[in-house]
Amino acid sequence: MTPIIGVFDSGFGGLTVLRALLERLPQARFAFLGDTARLPYGSKSRRTIAHYAVEGAQFLVREQGAESLVIACNTASALALDAIQDAVPVPVLGVIEPGAAAAKAASRSGDVLVIATDATVHSHAYAAACHAQGMRALEKACPLLVPLVEEGWTEHPVTGEVIRIYLDELLSHAAADGLRPDALVLGCTHYPLLRPLIERAVPAGIRVIDSAEATAEAALRQFDGRAAGPPPDPSQESSVRFFATDSVEKFGRLGSRFLARPVRNVELVDLGG
Amino acid sequence: MTPIIGVFDSGFGGLTVLRALLERLPQARFAFLGDTARLPYGSKSRRTIAHYAVEGAQFLVREQGAESLVIACNTASALALDAIQDAVPVPVLGVIEPGAAAAKAASRSGDVLVIATDATVHSHAYAAACHAQGMRALEKACPLLVPLVEEGWTEHPVTGEVIRIYLDELLSHAAADGLRPDALVLGCTHYPLLRPLIERAVPAGIRVIDSAEATAEAALRQFDGRAAGPPPDPSQESSVRFFATDSVEKFGRLGSRFLARPVRNVELVDLGG
Repeated sequence: MTPIIGVFDSGFGGLTVLRALLERLPQARFAFLGDTARLPYGSKSRRTIAHYAVEGAQFLVREQGAESLVIACNTASALALDAIQDAVPVPVLGVIEPGAAAAKAASRSGDVLVIATDATVHSHAYAAACHAQGMRALEKACPLLVPLVEEGWTEHPVTGEVIRIYLDELLSHAAADGLRPDALVLGCTHYPLLRPLIERAVPAGIRVIDSAEATAEAALRQFDGRAAGPPPDPSQESSVRFFATDSVEKFGRLGSRFLARPVRNVELVDLGG
Repeated sequence: MTPIIGVFDSGFGGLTVLRALLERLPQARFAFLGDTARLPYGSKSRRTIAHYAVEGAQFLVREQGAESLVIACNTASALALDAIQDAVPVPVLGVIEPGAAAAKAASRSGDVLVIATDATVHSHAYAAACHAQGMRALEKACPLLVPLVEEGWTEHPVTGEVIRIYLDELLSHAAADGLRPDALVLGCTHYPLLRPLIERAVPAGIRVIDSAEATAEAALRQFDGRAAGPPPDPSQESSVRFFATDSVEKFGRLGSRFLARPVRNVELVDLGG
């Protein structure tokens, strides 16, 4: 049997990372946990986020036998990656470093914009990761985008208008700071669903970087030996077990939009909160 | 000393109920708990909401000595009032019944519209409460309104547009069902902050009912003897202790908008989740 890759998220958005992982590791086995009873993490404090994320990571490792973990949530990666790494004895990959590395590969000016949740922005995790790669980053919290995605308004004119307002503020701020940005990192796993509207709103010359895609690439490099397992058996298909801490019916229904394929047999988990 | 009235909410919105209570019970003592670590309740399941709300109610009664409780959260009132009443030995007042009673007093046609969170709408608690008073009610979930209030866009054109879209859908649905509504209940404690925009968007002849105001009136009738305490001492001012389960700094900052006066000395509480 191939080892299990645990994928953790505060809710549904991490399914965009799982989707990218499934495309690249077609024979791997996954256990996905969405902590939907306590979502969203993006408006909460570091202490609370770390407490919740560690419980989720421990469930995947201890109860599900995951031998590596992907933290498919920007907020948890930004505020709790160290706490998770301390709490479980397996390799842990977050979404921030791969996102920053992808921005580095895409940017010529070295000036990068990042949009994310409140908590991710206030942690300045992307700014630090970009700085460590020799880039300058300007971050902006866009708290309405997650609710708009969850309302299903991914093609709605109101969403387009909200994106334009946020990007105008960000671009004005960048200009005032003397930045010449040529890359925009989607620093929240919900945002890939808004990519068409975002692409339309950014000025020409700014590339949109999806950290979900970048994280799947990094996982492929980091976990490939473990995940592929010798020898590859072409008859074996990838398998995913889904766990959620709140309504499994809602997880299946909303989750299918993020995974772009049906999410079935979701199991309810009680993490004690 | 006058007895303490406990006021429970999932977050900040219940402060609009506390504001209305403070106006009517100027000499009472209050303990307010916002379960901000686990907000919002409005997108969660009955089981999870009841679990969280009971923990909050028990904290106010057991640890703070509250002798009566106001559940200043429509979602918790709709899905967990029975569970809370079973769990604590003091009188408990929710916001749904007072909201329905206020609609009854305002409506001549007996047809009422209700806007609220997802969970409140799916519980059909307002429809049941209105039906028990001989009225017909049509409910609509408006999940973007809470995030728009929390973003501070209470006067923003985007918020006006979102309200128009939601109300158009609700009014079309009402017309298709043959209803002649003349009252609109704000079934979420965040919505009073949007009252000016909502008043502008509703057709003439529909009165806007604020369940926060209605609940404060009901509390005055139900708890007055307890809360006022004999004899009233005109030198005594109302006092409030504030508790939150996540960042006290954020609670003070955001909370002041809902209470319309400064929220200070917020104390952090761990409810174990």
